[in-house]
Amino acid sequence: MGLVSDAAKGIKNDLISSVAKAENISEEIVRKGISAGTIVVPKNLNRTLKKIVGVGQHLKTKVNANIGTSPDHIDLDEELKKMQAAVEAGADAIMDLSTGGNLTQIRKEILQACPVPVGTVPIYEAACRTVAKKKKISEIESEVLFDVIEEQCAQGVDFITVHCGITKATVDILNTDGRLAGVVSRGGSFLVKAIKASGKENPLYSQYDRLLDIAKKYDVTLSLGDGFRPGCTFDATDACQIAELSVLGQLVRRARQAGVQAMIEGPGHVPLNQIQANVEIAKKLGLGAPLYFLGPLVCDIAAGYDHITAAIGGALAAAYGVDFICYVTAAEHLRLPDIEDVYEGVIAARIAGHAADMVKGVAGAREMDNEMSKYRKALDWQKMQELSIDPKNFAKQRAKLPPQDKNVCTMCGEFCAMKD
Amino acid sequence: MGLVSDAAKGIKNDLISSVAKAENISEEIVRKGISAGTIVVPKNLNRTLKKIVGVGQHLKTKVNANIGTSPDHIDLDEELKKMQAAVEAGADAIMDLSTGGNLTQIRKEILQACPVPVGTVPIYEAACRTVAKKKKISEIESEVLFDVIEEQCAQGVDFITVHCGITKATVDILNTDGRLAGVVSRGGSFLVKAIKASGKENPLYSQYDRLLDIAKKYDVTLSLGDGFRPGCTFDATDACQIAELSVLGQLVRRARQAGVQAMIEGPGHVPLNQIQANVEIAKKLGLGAPLYFLGPLVCDIAAGYDHITAAIGGALAAAYGVDFICYVTAAEHLRLPDIEDVYEGVIAARIAGHAADMVKGVAGAREMDNEMSKYRKALDWQKMQELSIDPKNFAKQRAKLPPQDKNVCTMCGEFCAMKD
Repeated sequence: MGLVSDAAKGIKNDLISSVAKAENISEEIVRKGISAGTIVVPKNLNRTLKKIVGVGQHLKTKVNANIGTSPDHIDLDEELKKMQAAVEAGADAIMDLSTGGNLTQIRKEILQACPVPVGTVPIYEAACRTVAKKKKISEIESEVLFDVIEEQCAQGVDFITVHCGITKATVDILNTDGRLAGVVSRGGSFLVKAIKASGKENPLYSQYDRLLDIAKKYDVTLSLGDGFRPGCTFDATDACQIAELSVLGQLVRRARQAGVQAMIEGPGHVPLNQIQANVEIAKKLGLGAPLYFLGPLVCDIAAGYDHITAAIGGALAAAYGVDFICYVTAAEHLRLPDIEDVYEGVIAARIAGHAADMVKGVAGAREMDNEMSKYRKALDWQKMQELSIDPKNFAKQRAKLPPQDKNVCTMCGEFCAMKD
Repeated sequence: MGLVSDAAKGIKNDLISSVAKAENISEEIVRKGISAGTIVVPKNLNRTLKKIVGVGQHLKTKVNANIGTSPDHIDLDEELKKMQAAVEAGADAIMDLSTGGNLTQIRKEILQACPVPVGTVPIYEAACRTVAKKKKISEIESEVLFDVIEEQCAQGVDFITVHCGITKATVDILNTDGRLAGVVSRGGSFLVKAIKASGKENPLYSQYDRLLDIAKKYDVTLSLGDGFRPGCTFDATDACQIAELSVLGQLVRRARQAGVQAMIEGPGHVPLNQIQANVEIAKKLGLGAPLYFLGPLVCDIAAGYDHITAAIGGALAAAYGVDFICYVTAAEHLRLPDIEDVYEGVIAARIAGHAADMVKGVAGAREMDNEMSKYRKALDWQKMQELSIDPKNFAKQRAKLPPQDKNVCTMCGEFCAMKD
């Protein structure tokens, strides 16, 4: 049973037809992709989704928006509004990264209200429980972690980030890498601390079969986290990053054998001239599993505008084959994002994804731009607005300084080059 | 006499030492670049500049901000504020593209107030004079055009866009290209109309030596305009665009022979997978002249956010060798930009330029990011702010939701991965 099994055996499954319809491609391509593990469809068996979302080869590049409370700022209503803003802006998935307040309740309300797949990082809740018991994060217990994973999966989470590639062996490599920013993945940093303090192996690695069993039980997609993702461009593509990636590839293989859907997460901060290599090595070592990249940010000095820095890297990464982009907001590196940051972050990531889709042969992508260009030449402002990535903002921006001649805009007025 | 002649003969010239100092490279590299025509330093003999700006090989990628009135919106004070905002945001040059109001007066005030090089597109004023005489734009007269050029150069303009590659021969190619968006360069469209109506050659081409004489007289840099720049991604890299480019390369050669500085303008709208080819062919056909690209925009559907679309293309183009990026604002395709659009447009273009400088070996670029990363790891928020691309915005954004523990931020709070 389960989606992968259905796809492999050619058993009819509504998720396959939903994805095929949404992407305007054949069910056979989707079925083959799921069966081969090059496409995932994150959806928990216990969840009803308004929108089924496929991620992977041949499919439109998807965008995830991270929301969630932090110890410094706990406001469930605001997080629900962020979720709505992200969906309105066109996000294909939401991750609830809450670490402040009643996490079970927050997740429950997000799962209820959210029309698209929801992901989590269970180790965050395990860390919160550890700290609540007045213990250090490094004392995080494997049983607490697995309890949280089981609870979150039972609750209906569609995909979970699990940093299974942080191992005693890869931590050894980290120690010799001379990084400037060290470990910047929150979950990754917890596991590194635990390994260093206890000398014991990461339970997500040593008990990976147990993790697969839970994932299989609820048909939860594993998002194999990049705990060693570079946190600055200097650290990009270093030995521990690639060592972790090669572990993740092996875990993708075991997930496939178990009939569990898996994708691989990627960096992070990567200079422009290393993005292609990062994508290609991740596709190769990851055995073609869908790639889920955060950014990448192409420089380190643009805090306050990192939605732009990430859009640059994300566009390039997606053009080279990344399937799923995690947005970065303008608040990154500075504070928890607000509703406006979330909205604009999603749009920026969608622009990156679409620019990539145009050149990687995604069905219908290029046609949208050609249609827009025809309406632009025809000075058909209504159609331009409808086709634009954010029709509401299109209208709002144009209305700020309306032209005397409604056919043109106030940039060139009567000198509009589009006029004959 | 003149900068090129001084550079060729090894005569001391303050512009050479100013550029070398600003870029932290040797005077010899700058001298050789100016002599070879791979570096230009736009500065009119009649002008005093607070900031000398070099553009070209080995130098930091520069950013230009377009400002100026349109027939629909004439407010000199606002344009001066836009100029100030652009300079405050870090623009290296300003183009005054005014087409509404008293153009001579507007330009005079901008030239007086602006600390960086100022460029213009003289054919705009020639078009305004033509329309003022109740004539059609297609009836634009060559004597009016050359009068305007001479007047603007005498007034102190540092560089001028001249669409010399729109010729009878390249218009013939345009006619067969099947473009979706036709000609979107304003100046280019005026010249195409004139050629089509009169059957006569473009005076900027047929009387190019006259143009060179004026440029030489005031040491004005020619920015050889891309009148056939693609106005949508479908039209990118087509025959008329490349034909115009090959004409421009020939004109670069003649400019060099005359001791006139010249750069070449580039597109426009270009899909991600054609940017490298566009830059390389422009560098080759342009004989290594500095490249000045507008964008490029990597898709057509993002009006309202085209500063982001352009930053994606601009970063990639600059990484492949573009030397000078003309910003695109969020208002592009919708209306004349306001002050905020100008500011944010410059920042977006600077991010693109810096991300490129890190990977094309510009002195000091990579070091900035490494320094930032060290301060980020050290949680030194004051130094991070000082080093960031926009310190004011850094402070403003962080203050929106201040953390309880001043060492971290409200994204992760006590779970900050950067903390030990």
